[in-house]
Amino acid sequence: MQFSSSLLENAVNEFAKLPGIGKKTALRLVLHLLKQDIKVTGQFSEVIGRMRTEIKFCHRCFNVADGDICSICANSMRKQEVICVVENIRDVIAIESTQQYNGTYHILNGVISPLDGIGPDQLNIESLVNRIEKEKIEELIFALNPNIQGDTTIYYIQKKLSSRSGSQNPADGQPLNIRITTIARGIAFGGELEYADEMTLARSLQNRLPVESYVSSR
Amino acid sequence: MQFSSSLLENAVNEFAKLPGIGKKTALRLVLHLLKQDIKVTGQFSEVIGRMRTEIKFCHRCFNVADGDICSICANSMRKQEVICVVENIRDVIAIESTQQYNGTYHILNGVISPLDGIGPDQLNIESLVNRIEKEKIEELIFALNPNIQGDTTIYYIQKKLSSRSGSQNPADGQPLNIRITTIARGIAFGGELEYADEMTLARSLQNRLPVESYVSSR
Repeated sequence: MQFSSSLLENAVNEFAKLPGIGKKTALRLVLHLLKQDIKVTGQFSEVIGRMRTEIKFCHRCFNVADGDICSICANSMRKQEVICVVENIRDVIAIESTQQYNGTYHILNGVISPLDGIGPDQLNIESLVNRIEKEKIEELIFALNPNIQGDTTIYYIQKKLSSRSGSQNPADGQPLNIRITTIARGIAFGGELEYADEMTLARSLQNRLPVESYVSSR
Repeated sequence: MQFSSSLLENAVNEFAKLPGIGKKTALRLVLHLLKQDIKVTGQFSEVIGRMRTEIKFCHRCFNVADGDICSICANSMRKQEVICVVENIRDVIAIESTQQYNGTYHILNGVISPLDGIGPDQLNIESLVNRIEKEKIEELIFALNPNIQGDTTIYYIQKKLSSRSGSQNPADGQPLNIRITTIARGIAFGGELEYADEMTLARSLQNRLPVESYVSSR
């Protein structure tokens, strides 16, 4: 593509770097912004810039936040003793849309995937284990995509939890009395959690199963 | 969709305003930008903002430009006596990609379309007629989408040219000796010019026809 303006060309190239946006779509989007009032495009540019510089990640669950703690962790109306373990922020948004879950989250920022070079150390697993040891956690719900990587991650975390504390809470010597569950396999194997419809996702949260029965049914 | 951060929510809403971008795609794009280095996202935001505030439109042909005159009009290697009339900037880029055209452009900024409330006064037609009267123009090539609106626009401009000057150049009293052509109808009726492949578009430029034969063959 040849452009008569380098400003236009740069803008198109920036949009074309985004995933799933080709040159023609990028041009269409840029020309749309060019047609808008100068304030509208200014706002677009400013909001994106601010989002990246000012957004924070919750110190506790790694969700996006406007401050140090996200609005879910800061909400005393939610069950702070329940943690739902998810792969990324999109999954939090998907589960929140069901309006069926009233606990907290822990975002792993991925799943164990040796083929992609992602090991446990690159994920927020250590912080999850620390959180379980420090806080009074009653239930751990795994809401990971139902595939090999998700299953491997569940298995790894489960092993880690039992080995770390020998099933005992180091703080008071009491056994770690945690119910560990996964969302029901209502979602087709190989499917993507974020595209599930809200009914399926809500039901799979309601019908969550103990990890033992989940693994043995494979 | 429920977000735990208003910064994230605002950014998603801004992206979702773009044509063809839904909420889920917007979220995907925003999370992609969030993952990038702070400089990368800063550059994205800055380039888009600068594009809208600093870009200019060529005083002569209404193409996008970095200065008062676009790089095509300023290029003395191009035939300044030939004008290719197009609907918008996307069409200029499509024709430039064929590398078969070495003249200048005139961007109408739309076509006559009474159903959409677009009349001749909202288009850059007056400036085109002025340009033809003032400059030494040898050929006018219509490269409009082959549909009713495009044909109406060609017909209107042709009538306007002959009525305005009585087929005479008012400057020196000489007849307006302009060859008026349209690109060949290699493109299917109802198709979109900007999506034509380069071969078809290049051939339709090479095989351009006098307007008389084009209209009579309908």
